[in-house]
Amino acid sequence: MAKTVEKRYAIGVDYGTNSVRALVVDVADGGEIGSFVADYTAGDHGILLDPKDPNLARQSPADYVNGFYQSVRRALKAAGRSPGFQPAKVIGIGVDTTGSTPLPVDRHGQPLAMQPRFQHDLAAQAWLWKDHTAHAEAAEITEQARRQGMPYLAKCGGTYSSEWYWSKVLHCKRTSPKVFAAAYGWVELADFVPGFLTGNIDPHTAARGICAAGHKALYNDSWGGLPSREFLASLDPGLAELRDRYARQAVPADRPAGRLAADVAGRVGLPAGIPVAVGAFDAHMGAVGAGIKPGTLVKIIGTSTCDMMVAPLDQPLADIPGLCGIVPGSVLPGMYGLEAGQSAVGDIFNWFVSRLAPPEYARGDAHANLTRDAQRLRPGESGLVALDWNNGNRTILVDPRLAGLLIGQTLHTTAAEIYRALVEATAFGALTIIQRLEEYGVAVKEVVNCGGIAEKNPFVMQIYADVCNRPMKVSRSAQTCALGAAIFGAVVGGAYASTEKAQRRMTGVKPTVYRPRKAAAATYAELYGLYRALHDALGTPNHPGNLYPVMKNLLAIRDRVRQEK
Amino acid sequence: MAKTVEKRYAIGVDYGTNSVRALVVDVADGGEIGSFVADYTAGDHGILLDPKDPNLARQSPADYVNGFYQSVRRALKAAGRSPGFQPAKVIGIGVDTTGSTPLPVDRHGQPLAMQPRFQHDLAAQAWLWKDHTAHAEAAEITEQARRQGMPYLAKCGGTYSSEWYWSKVLHCKRTSPKVFAAAYGWVELADFVPGFLTGNIDPHTAARGICAAGHKALYNDSWGGLPSREFLASLDPGLAELRDRYARQAVPADRPAGRLAADVAGRVGLPAGIPVAVGAFDAHMGAVGAGIKPGTLVKIIGTSTCDMMVAPLDQPLADIPGLCGIVPGSVLPGMYGLEAGQSAVGDIFNWFVSRLAPPEYARGDAHANLTRDAQRLRPGESGLVALDWNNGNRTILVDPRLAGLLIGQTLHTTAAEIYRALVEATAFGALTIIQRLEEYGVAVKEVVNCGGIAEKNPFVMQIYADVCNRPMKVSRSAQTCALGAAIFGAVVGGAYASTEKAQRRMTGVKPTVYRPRKAAAATYAELYGLYRALHDALGTPNHPGNLYPVMKNLLAIRDRVRQEK
Repeated sequence: MAKTVEKRYAIGVDYGTNSVRALVVDVADGGEIGSFVADYTAGDHGILLDPKDPNLARQSPADYVNGFYQSVRRALKAAGRSPGFQPAKVIGIGVDTTGSTPLPVDRHGQPLAMQPRFQHDLAAQAWLWKDHTAHAEAAEITEQARRQGMPYLAKCGGTYSSEWYWSKVLHCKRTSPKVFAAAYGWVELADFVPGFLTGNIDPHTAARGICAAGHKALYNDSWGGLPSREFLASLDPGLAELRDRYARQAVPADRPAGRLAADVAGRVGLPAGIPVAVGAFDAHMGAVGAGIKPGTLVKIIGTSTCDMMVAPLDQPLADIPGLCGIVPGSVLPGMYGLEAGQSAVGDIFNWFVSRLAPPEYARGDAHANLTRDAQRLRPGESGLVALDWNNGNRTILVDPRLAGLLIGQTLHTTAAEIYRALVEATAFGALTIIQRLEEYGVAVKEVVNCGGIAEKNPFVMQIYADVCNRPMKVSRSAQTCALGAAIFGAVVGGAYASTEKAQRRMTGVKPTVYRPRKAAAATYAELYGLYRALHDALGTPNHPGNLYPVMKNLLAIRDRVRQEK
Repeated sequence: MAKTVEKRYAIGVDYGTNSVRALVVDVADGGEIGSFVADYTAGDHGILLDPKDPNLARQSPADYVNGFYQSVRRALKAAGRSPGFQPAKVIGIGVDTTGSTPLPVDRHGQPLAMQPRFQHDLAAQAWLWKDHTAHAEAAEITEQARRQGMPYLAKCGGTYSSEWYWSKVLHCKRTSPKVFAAAYGWVELADFVPGFLTGNIDPHTAARGICAAGHKALYNDSWGGLPSREFLASLDPGLAELRDRYARQAVPADRPAGRLAADVAGRVGLPAGIPVAVGAFDAHMGAVGAGIKPGTLVKIIGTSTCDMMVAPLDQPLADIPGLCGIVPGSVLPGMYGLEAGQSAVGDIFNWFVSRLAPPEYARGDAHANLTRDAQRLRPGESGLVALDWNNGNRTILVDPRLAGLLIGQTLHTTAAEIYRALVEATAFGALTIIQRLEEYGVAVKEVVNCGGIAEKNPFVMQIYADVCNRPMKVSRSAQTCALGAAIFGAVVGGAYASTEKAQRRMTGVKPTVYRPRKAAAATYAELYGLYRALHDALGTPNHPGNLYPVMKNLLAIRDRVRQEK
């Protein structure tokens, strides 16, 4: 008879863009025994939009609260079908969220959006990561930091983003002064959720994660935490006030934020008092769930991508221009967390499918239909190249004020050709990030992909392998963000002495690896040259490049490939 | 009782890209009393394609012969319902065709394609105007003429085109030597049809139109007709042979090619012996049918456009870089004919509709559905700009090795926005032609549009008026090419002493004029600046322009326009 080991479990709760996922895992091996995805209900798939302003994307905080209850309750119910599982055996909870997704709160930490007075005010909701309304403020913050010779931008690629905390808060001050005045503070969603779970949302005392603070709010211990009061006041006196209305010290996610509050525990059927880890962003915890370690690039490919790496704190690391952030402890405690990303990937494919798929593809699963024809094409055969900037460019240009481009279309260009060109464009964007990391001494020895596209789309993954000319591995878990959160739950629950130790037991990659094909890689190297020429000419000021050869070369490659066929 | 005037009629036969149209008109006032369109039956809507080579477009000469019989017979039948019409009252026939559409013929002038041996050989068919297989040969001819200091290119914009006679013939020599060897000569469709109608297709003695020779075969009386034997031999010895296997002198279309042969006359029910005018291209005769005169730009807007002007022979006229051709007598006898054009206009809209219209638009009339939503948009609102180069650029770049471009798409961009951007792109292309004409001293005092799009599409015409910031008139006749051909039929039939006199009685414009709207024109002036920046950067070698502002400005214009709404 086999030795009976007492099973223990952790829960990861992953707040995505359209839904929240709860995952119950076995802390011994990462085995996933129950999960549930609760869709947000407000607005358009959980996103509050403004028809007059395509840059705006907000969320209702009520969706966060209700989403927790619904997803965890149902995940526990699913886990209940696993032999031996009992809610009492859950030892810890971890939480990851999108970000920067700040929400204005009152003195007690209650979201303003939950007050009747502000219930329907878009400015009082959570400002979703992909809200780009604050592009002017982002440019202003960048400009001020440069002019004043402040070091703040060195760790975030040299450019502050419209997606980030201070830009959004400042934009609110400028455009919705009533909401700004009513807000005592602005809390990141990644901090709000653990606060709400542990019954402490007071902005002064709730735990503050290093991930959101370091990547989005210019927090760095080397300059004493947040930017100085003087700097913030130079942007707007109102910002300086906010500096001290949030926990002073930011901490990594292997620390407990507190213990599960009795009322919350009761509503989902868990024992009260379970440790809850400090929150972090989905991509960062996803990287942990995908087994990130030095030399391993984890790509989380969904509507957008996050590209994560870690590097030991005790080795020198250059500031990397265009990288979203380099923050000690933001991914793994004791290591630099490096964050890069693409502002839209799956979102671009979805855009094409929802807006431009002709009837012969739109029937049934349009992605599958387009993929069927697109994967029959050879690299270069369409004569097309696209830029993957429909939602701006996060890395390496850090510029939301960019847009898409498609070049090379003829009177014969098909929808499947364009679909493939869009996939290739995102692969070129991925390669641009890898090249930038390596240019600055961060060797990419392995790429592990996760997220819906990595999981379900061999067509896209093969193109990534060919374009990047590297093997593409896929994380064993299909729910790496939630798994990463659960790993931190396991750590704060005491199952492991370190996050790395937990990772070694709880993560892995699938046996199938997408390997680059030589001929495809060679053609893509040529096409990447054209992508890069367009990228640099349209995305960087005063670029001297000559674009005249672009169409010529596209047509020449196309003709050559078709002759070879 | 009103005075009874003996009615007289002329027939215009217009060979288009997909069909042939016959039109019976009253020579007194241009009244159109009967017409019929006979579709070509070979290939894809009359075009023989090669799935391996999107540049290839050929036609079966049998379609030309059968198309004449069918269209004229049925047009005469329709005319027969008009009181007083009798076939015996037809006094002349004019013919226009696409071009350069050369076909290889044997010693007797019979198309090789009609011989069983070559029936299925694509190289032995007619090489349709939009066949771009000969782009390498076009570049070679341009290069040779420049290197040898030959004057030939001065009258065709400085660049020889892959669409033109010698490029196509040379490409055949290089790629289908058997067809080339079997061909005694190569005859333009515009000369083949009058030859066939008059029973004289012998390449030595059949009438040769100045229009095709001057615009496409480098014919100019100032250098003794065709290019020298030496020059042609320097391209390929085989070409020199061809120089003298075609009528030596080319003549305008107010001259008779001969008289209707009895067998042809019998098959359509006309009296034999009716004068048949020398042939010319559709655009040139279309310009005549639209009332062209000095200062009037006639735009024939269909799948592509032709932009025609005339200028008095007795006034100085500069060589205009990028203009397809400046040929004395090619439009109106005694005047320079100036030909410019856009390689694709309606073809671009059709491409979008057939390839990329999503189901909600594709049901029913997709053009109408897209137009409905596209015309609700304001200029600049989409943030998009496109280049109208899906089929290359005829004027002002004279370069088939260019392709389409769309810039500015976001995750919210709609099909209707793209459709409008494509329409605007063709309008920007139209404006580029107008600007080039005026830069070289050819004042455009009036624009008369004709062709299917001018006739049926107020949405497109209003955008043209706004973009060009000029009133857009529309030709009274909806069949200007066939009407122009009929005018030449009337002239050779003796009804008028000159083409101009015939025009004054037989042509006119519609009462509705599209007038530019001030605000729209102002926004379009901004957008044109961006179009032009892309046009110059991607279409001209070594252009120093900086494209970084393009996306920035597109987004800024978009945001401003949406705020104004």
